[in-house]
Amino acid sequence: MGKTLIFGHKSPDTDTICSALVYANLKNKLGLDAEPARLGEVNKETQFALDYFGVDAPQFIEKVADDVERVILVDHNEFQQSVDNIKDVRIAEVIDHHRVSNFETKEPLYFRAEPVGCTATILNKLYKENGVEVEKDMAGLLLSAIISDSLLLKSPTCTQEDVDAAHELAKKADVDLEKYGLEMLQAGADLSDKSPAELISMDAKEFAMGDAKVEIAQVNTVDASTVYALQAELETTIDQTINEKELDLFLFVVTDILNNDSEVLARGTGKDKVETAFNVALDDQNRALLKGVVSRKKQIVTALTDAFTK
Amino acid sequence: MGKTLIFGHKSPDTDTICSALVYANLKNKLGLDAEPARLGEVNKETQFALDYFGVDAPQFIEKVADDVERVILVDHNEFQQSVDNIKDVRIAEVIDHHRVSNFETKEPLYFRAEPVGCTATILNKLYKENGVEVEKDMAGLLLSAIISDSLLLKSPTCTQEDVDAAHELAKKADVDLEKYGLEMLQAGADLSDKSPAELISMDAKEFAMGDAKVEIAQVNTVDASTVYALQAELETTIDQTINEKELDLFLFVVTDILNNDSEVLARGTGKDKVETAFNVALDDQNRALLKGVVSRKKQIVTALTDAFTK
Repeated sequence: MGKTLIFGHKSPDTDTICSALVYANLKNKLGLDAEPARLGEVNKETQFALDYFGVDAPQFIEKVADDVERVILVDHNEFQQSVDNIKDVRIAEVIDHHRVSNFETKEPLYFRAEPVGCTATILNKLYKENGVEVEKDMAGLLLSAIISDSLLLKSPTCTQEDVDAAHELAKKADVDLEKYGLEMLQAGADLSDKSPAELISMDAKEFAMGDAKVEIAQVNTVDASTVYALQAELETTIDQTINEKELDLFLFVVTDILNNDSEVLARGTGKDKVETAFNVALDDQNRALLKGVVSRKKQIVTALTDAFTK
Repeated sequence: MGKTLIFGHKSPDTDTICSALVYANLKNKLGLDAEPARLGEVNKETQFALDYFGVDAPQFIEKVADDVERVILVDHNEFQQSVDNIKDVRIAEVIDHHRVSNFETKEPLYFRAEPVGCTATILNKLYKENGVEVEKDMAGLLLSAIISDSLLLKSPTCTQEDVDAAHELAKKADVDLEKYGLEMLQAGADLSDKSPAELISMDAKEFAMGDAKVEIAQVNTVDASTVYALQAELETTIDQTINEKELDLFLFVVTDILNNDSEVLARGTGKDKVETAFNVALDDQNRALLKGVVSRKKQIVTALTDAFTK
């Protein structure tokens, strides 16, 4: 069997990068010629985790090269979130924890999605199912992914399986879960050197909702007001993106990791759907505070999809 | 949690019926209020298996009732093969071994597809993963499903996992694999009392291939010529179906379970795609012999999809 490339979604977050690295490690131990890859820049939170556990970032790719025989998608399945030439390659596996949408194959494949908080939690199970021990550095990466996706086990997406996996992996990685987790999240919440263009793209995902094209970008912070000091520049950049990608809505989500709320900025002709979805009124700056909302997947995408399709 | 309904595809085969029954059994043992259902008539092969192991057929449903909270799809994922109101219900799980296509959810779910020959092989693993023992009658149903989908372990879709599961399950079911398997297949291959309308619908599935709508019906026999004694009536019935469903192609596949070949009858404007896909010429009766072709999924759907999309 030829080379297998393993990668997560565009605008990679910690779960996407770490899951690609760790699943490639498992596949290598099982005798497969697999390499991890990434579709975008490594963010500060992820870099903190990689540095802490001494693992190099995976190779950056713009498209899947011709010498790759099969690909494995981790942490995503929707084609618009994947590599640009995804329709031309053979997808052998998907390991994911998101809804299934805009995905299809011509042939049967291994598709493992579970409604847990993090892809890493599923990978931890796959090590067990395959009888392979998780080594310290890989345990550290899996733990980092769970902490990131669950905001230190506080997000409503976090299940008991994620909590159990996190505690088990913290032991194997030899770190204090709370202390390491807060340090890692704070490293990611440092947005001081980010331009407006970086802020709206560093963790952005596009979704099809009914006939509408919606992009949702999310950043974590310990102080939303510093991000919105750039309101005017953010709006200009968002409007450019809306025009370029012909979006119906761009939702910028600034999540306060200490208070577990999100202040959102909505632009585009579909911005009234945000008001419907969350039963809030956008203020004169097109912003609204969503109390207790921290999960794009579980709290934002589902509510907005409902609003766009009803 | 409210009621969960578990069902396979329309025009049910042995894997679809048995997988619904067995997975409901596993879910019940795990404490879930789950009921199996079916979307069509039980065929003779399946009835043989049910009678042999003393299990009642699941309830027939035309649509999912309002009191059902969640559904689980087994042995299929494509919406056009599922219950008519599938888009109005919450899909909690999918257990399948087919390609993924025309499927989407609003929320994360448990989606477990594996490229093995039979859904039952995956279910056998799920019993183990959940630490539940497979009882004799359920082992018999799982074994019957594997024998059916793999034509007694001879189909190219059959993997080592299916073979291993079949031998393990034959022991638990206390039957001789070869002897029981041939009896069951022969019970299913008795088509003597079938009308042309029954022949083209008893195991029929619809597929989207590029922009084309294609229906593929398959019957197993020990003598294809007795089926094609009804050629004229078959054509009339197929043409009616093409008109009603606005199909581009209807492919009727008569599979010889002793010689492991298929003689196909192609109707519709897309019938030339059959010639392209299999590098054969249809004769003046729109028929062709496909040597060594027995698997709709692995040998027919993939080749035809290529022909329609290139």
